[in-house]
Amino acid sequence: MTDESMLRDAVALASRLIDAESVTPAGPAVFDALEAMLHPLGFAVERFHAGEAPDGPVENLLAVRGTGSPHFAFAGHLDVVPPGEGWSSDPFAADIRGGLLYGRGAVDMKGAIAAFVAAVARQAAGNGTLSLIITGDEEGPAIHGTRALIDRLRGRSLIPDLCLVGEPTSVDRLGDTIKIGRRGSVNIWIDVPGRQGHVAYPHLADNPVPKLVRALAAIDALPLDQGTEWFQPSNIEITDLAVGNPAHNVIPAAASARISIRFNDLHRGEDLARLIERTVHAHAPEATVTPRISGEAFLTEPGPFSDLVSDAIQAEAGTCPTLSTGGGTSDARFLSQLCPVVEFGLVNATMHKLDEAVAVADLDRLSRIYADILARAFRR
Amino acid sequence: MTDESMLRDAVALASRLIDAESVTPAGPAVFDALEAMLHPLGFAVERFHAGEAPDGPVENLLAVRGTGSPHFAFAGHLDVVPPGEGWSSDPFAADIRGGLLYGRGAVDMKGAIAAFVAAVARQAAGNGTLSLIITGDEEGPAIHGTRALIDRLRGRSLIPDLCLVGEPTSVDRLGDTIKIGRRGSVNIWIDVPGRQGHVAYPHLADNPVPKLVRALAAIDALPLDQGTEWFQPSNIEITDLAVGNPAHNVIPAAASARISIRFNDLHRGEDLARLIERTVHAHAPEATVTPRISGEAFLTEPGPFSDLVSDAIQAEAGTCPTLSTGGGTSDARFLSQLCPVVEFGLVNATMHKLDEAVAVADLDRLSRIYADILARAFRR
Ligand SMILES: [Zn+2]
Ligand SMILES: [Zn+2]
Repeated sequence: MTDESMLRDAVALASRLIDAESVTPAGPAVFDALEAMLHPLGFAVERFHAGEAPDGPVENLLAVRGTGSPHFAFAGHLDVVPPGEGWSSDPFAADIRGGLLYGRGAVDMKGAIAAFVAAVARQAAGNGTLSLIITGDEEGPAIHGTRALIDRLRGRSLIPDLCLVGEPTSVDRLGDTIKIGRRGSVNIWIDVPGRQGHVAYPHLADNPVPKLVRALAAIDALPLDQGTEWFQPSNIEITDLAVGNPAHNVIPAAASARISIRFNDLHRGEDLARLIERTVHAHAPEATVTPRISGEAFLTEPGPFSDLVSDAIQAEAGTCPTLSTGGGTSDARFLSQLCPVVEFGLVNATMHKLDEAVAVADLDRLSRIYADILARAFRR
Repeated sequence: MTDESMLRDAVALASRLIDAESVTPAGPAVFDALEAMLHPLGFAVERFHAGEAPDGPVENLLAVRGTGSPHFAFAGHLDVVPPGEGWSSDPFAADIRGGLLYGRGAVDMKGAIAAFVAAVARQAAGNGTLSLIITGDEEGPAIHGTRALIDRLRGRSLIPDLCLVGEPTSVDRLGDTIKIGRRGSVNIWIDVPGRQGHVAYPHLADNPVPKLVRALAAIDALPLDQGTEWFQPSNIEITDLAVGNPAHNVIPAAASARISIRFNDLHRGEDLARLIERTVHAHAPEATVTPRISGEAFLTEPGPFSDLVSDAIQAEAGTCPTLSTGGGTSDARFLSQLCPVVEFGLVNATMHKLDEAVAVADLDRLSRIYADILARAFRR
């Protein structure tokens, strides 16, 4: 693995990473494999465990080369979602068939990490700082992963100027989409208490269901926003209802619901939680409203960083990428607290699916684009 | 049991019936006990089984004495609800303590049947027809009980002119309340289909929950009526909600609810079911709405029959009863299809509870009231 030419081969590196099974939380083998690639490239590699059961411990890796500015960071995760049953080949044994590299994590996102390492191997080291911020828990609770890495960076005053996240953002072809932001996410549990009784004697009972239903109808009708230049409108979904009353003639003692809000940067999770609470309490004053904010919305305003990434894509792939803020959440929501963040990686069609696979040509092309991004970033 | 004096002793007869365990559906022992009481009083007793599994077979008893009019019927049930754990004495061994007769069915309604038999034993047989319509399944599905007895009566053209049902209608003291009607009851299941998806991509999914919630809010706001001279307002309760979606980030594929309507004689179950269906379909056109009508509302307009019962109560207990249509359903909902029905029986405080008990004095007094009702009915 110290063979310099192999270090420039994104496909070979991706295969090494895929072969090290790493369902969340990723074990040491896959970190060993990455560390073995980074040492010869001059990185100081630091690995540490964070957190305790049930959400930890989680292994994380921080690799740093050089000092001073600019500080360019690449962030990603070595853990993968469980492969499931029914693969055509062993999900943890990289296999090339018909121009595609198969294996769990090929797309999300061992392939992108390999492409970045190969990009670094192709570039001469410039001035400034280059870092890799790699967690073993992005697909899981994500409590002790990237957040712990950010704490460590802050503790060392090692704040990047720019951070590229290697999530698979491409939709139909490599480079067609990059993400300059993500919506925030908050889940809210609503529990309405009542007083149980017989339907024939409703005056002796207090049915919680109509209160919940009215509250939910009001929540569903809440105008949040019309979207922004860069974001879709914020959206509320009622994802669960529960009473659990098997008796036809009994008024139930409690009723509950769960809602999920994906919101743009016009809102903060806490404000939305309060809005929901106020709306619920207008119809069910005794209800309990319990929010859990998974992440705030963030936006890296289109500008120098997104231009830099777009230009590199245009130069190497001939495509002008769409700047998107759609889709689910990623660890970019944490990294955006440090510095401008752009996400760009492979075509996401097979991520989290059976027979996850990446085109060998795409891995190579992504590596060249990453190398171009590095050249542009350190040229400034 | 052929001892004439014992046949006039409501407490002794009630004890006999209690001692024959008869959780729904009642077995033959309790019918044997009743039949042994009715033979010496000159009744032709007919017992038959109706129905098949799972709601049958059910044993029923029809006892008839005399011919022609007037035809006065007494209806009731020998089955009892399960006793549960924690009784102070054996629920199926009648026990008198402190002036109370304890045992499952003492109040609901072996006590009333015993009181009626004793009343018959005290009265000379008059002109006309006297019948007892007794089922072994009132507390259960009630599919093959009183309804089968009604079929049999109709098949013989044995239609009563009046029917007294011995359900425990008294609330605080014997005779304070009789029932001249009951509300109807319909349960309705609402199932709204949708299309499952990820909350981050709501345009690819179709969330059934907001449709259900809007439909239920509209149902809850439906004006049914303000009540009538004899009935409370009809009432809708939403008794269950279900989605069953454990995943915070998933839009569920289906949502359902169950409602229960207790309605007065301004409505019919079928019309209400259609009203609910229309209301649901206005918000969720693809929803399935499944009604099950347990019984229609009925009213025996206050008049000669209720006056007769009230006068007998007044004469024997010094109380003028309230004419009620409240509470749950009873087999009177079926009997009302035959003839005017009035329900009158013991104090219902301990019915269906642990240590169900009736005051020995009340059993005697009820028997005297029933005897007076018979005297007045056959005097006409
Ligand atoms: Zn990922
Ligand atoms: Zn009863």
